[in-house]
Amino acid sequence: MSLYGAVEAGGTKFVVAVGDDPLQPRDVRRFSTSNNPLETVSEVVEYFRERGPLKGVGVATFGPIDFASGAITNTPKLAWQNFPLRDALRRGLNVPVGFDTDVNGAALGEARCGAGKGLENLVYITVGTGIGGGALVGGQLVHGLMHPEMGHLLVRRAPGEIAEFKGVCPFHGDCLEGLASGPAMQARWGVPADELAPEHEAWRIEADYLAQACVNLACVVSPQVIVLGGGVMGQRHLFPLVRTRAEELSQGYLPLPAIVPPGLEYPGLSGAFVLAMECV
Amino acid sequence: MSLYGAVEAGGTKFVVAVGDDPLQPRDVRRFSTSNNPLETVSEVVEYFRERGPLKGVGVATFGPIDFASGAITNTPKLAWQNFPLRDALRRGLNVPVGFDTDVNGAALGEARCGAGKGLENLVYITVGTGIGGGALVGGQLVHGLMHPEMGHLLVRRAPGEIAEFKGVCPFHGDCLEGLASGPAMQARWGVPADELAPEHEAWRIEADYLAQACVNLACVVSPQVIVLGGGVMGQRHLFPLVRTRAEELSQGYLPLPAIVPPGLEYPGLSGAFVLAMECV
Repeated sequence: MSLYGAVEAGGTKFVVAVGDDPLQPRDVRRFSTSNNPLETVSEVVEYFRERGPLKGVGVATFGPIDFASGAITNTPKLAWQNFPLRDALRRGLNVPVGFDTDVNGAALGEARCGAGKGLENLVYITVGTGIGGGALVGGQLVHGLMHPEMGHLLVRRAPGEIAEFKGVCPFHGDCLEGLASGPAMQARWGVPADELAPEHEAWRIEADYLAQACVNLACVVSPQVIVLGGGVMGQRHLFPLVRTRAEELSQGYLPLPAIVPPGLEYPGLSGAFVLAMECV
Repeated sequence: MSLYGAVEAGGTKFVVAVGDDPLQPRDVRRFSTSNNPLETVSEVVEYFRERGPLKGVGVATFGPIDFASGAITNTPKLAWQNFPLRDALRRGLNVPVGFDTDVNGAALGEARCGAGKGLENLVYITVGTGIGGGALVGGQLVHGLMHPEMGHLLVRRAPGEIAEFKGVCPFHGDCLEGLASGPAMQARWGVPADELAPEHEAWRIEADYLAQACVNLACVVSPQVIVLGGGVMGQRHLFPLVRTRAEELSQGYLPLPAIVPPGLEYPGLSGAFVLAMECV
């Protein structure tokens, strides 16, 4: 009995794996996220039982979540609202369950065995369909009143941004996610982000928003590393633009963290393994 | 030997006290901050020796500081640049010295025995001649690449702000400190902040900047409480304006922290006592 289980719970699919090394998930399986949470949980439980016994399971999940109850709270996926995912898995498997947001999980994974291996202060931001962020401060994941919700940072309009573009966040319009997520770029430029040429001004504007987020993160938690992951960051030419713009914005006042791509192939899934190992 | 020493080290004065209760500093004394740091340190050492022996000393100091060396680093007060304040006191007194920024000290004090007594996640922001912030996350003060520098958060121009006002921060112009510190208000409105009537639009604009900071702090570290202190916050009518504006900006998406005045009469000095107690 040396295996751990890992669950990366997303709004469209659950990715599960077993293993004893966060870098080597074995037997990776995907289940689509059912409109009936009990159905998804029983698929996950069955998958693990067939491979058990396990020492523990880690869950890096979509949110928002409540740490006290281990439940997903006010997600737009109505069937999952207030579903007690942590306890459902704990009861089904009878093992300790480490439970956190997908992006806190990814931050933990990157800090323990990825781009920030061995560091105690790291932020992970995913820039894709949405924007989310997780943070490790002093070696611990940030849990406060709730958890980080970095997608909704308020940012300034980038130089060159047009006032007519109101942003796509249903809550805030032009918060970070509203201006810089994949759907925001598509709404702003009329084509998916990955069809925009590297020299398109869209990338300079995108870099401005991400650089503002990085500078403000440095002002608040002073991380050693900021990892930028997610589909949009697959455009690697964005990294030098973000770094240069962050230096311009901070004007040499602050030492800026390294701004780097993920070191892990599957940050959330590897992070879920670390959650499992650290909860045992 | 039950006494602790506390030092609140500021750019213009050092405030020192002894005691065994952070809420009851005894024998409070002020020394002006000399252009010769060794002179100030020897006054402080002499003060404590006369009242010793002490169990330990806590220092909440102006910054920026480096935790590894215990030095003040690139302060505009040139004589103090790279001065190893922590070790100078440790050598002079031969006791353990707890050492942190003034605002981290204040955050610790407010969390241990002030407005957020017993909480593990709290931010303290001072709004005065400058703006600074300290943070406790998971019960620990935030130390990363350096420490929080919340005065330099990038904020949006408030609705109604004029483009001609460039802000007063020598590094960034219109960062939070550049737009919302006491000197910024004076530069913007032509009179000291405390001469502006409560119904003056200056306060609505000021509240917008502080509310943006509060919302972004909620997005990053999700504190249970944000304490707003410093001279400008002596205008208590600002608190409801900040709270209301923060609710407007977050649009119900995030649970916002309580936004409150300090619970301590001397947050920095009381925090220095806690630093002393917790380093022993």
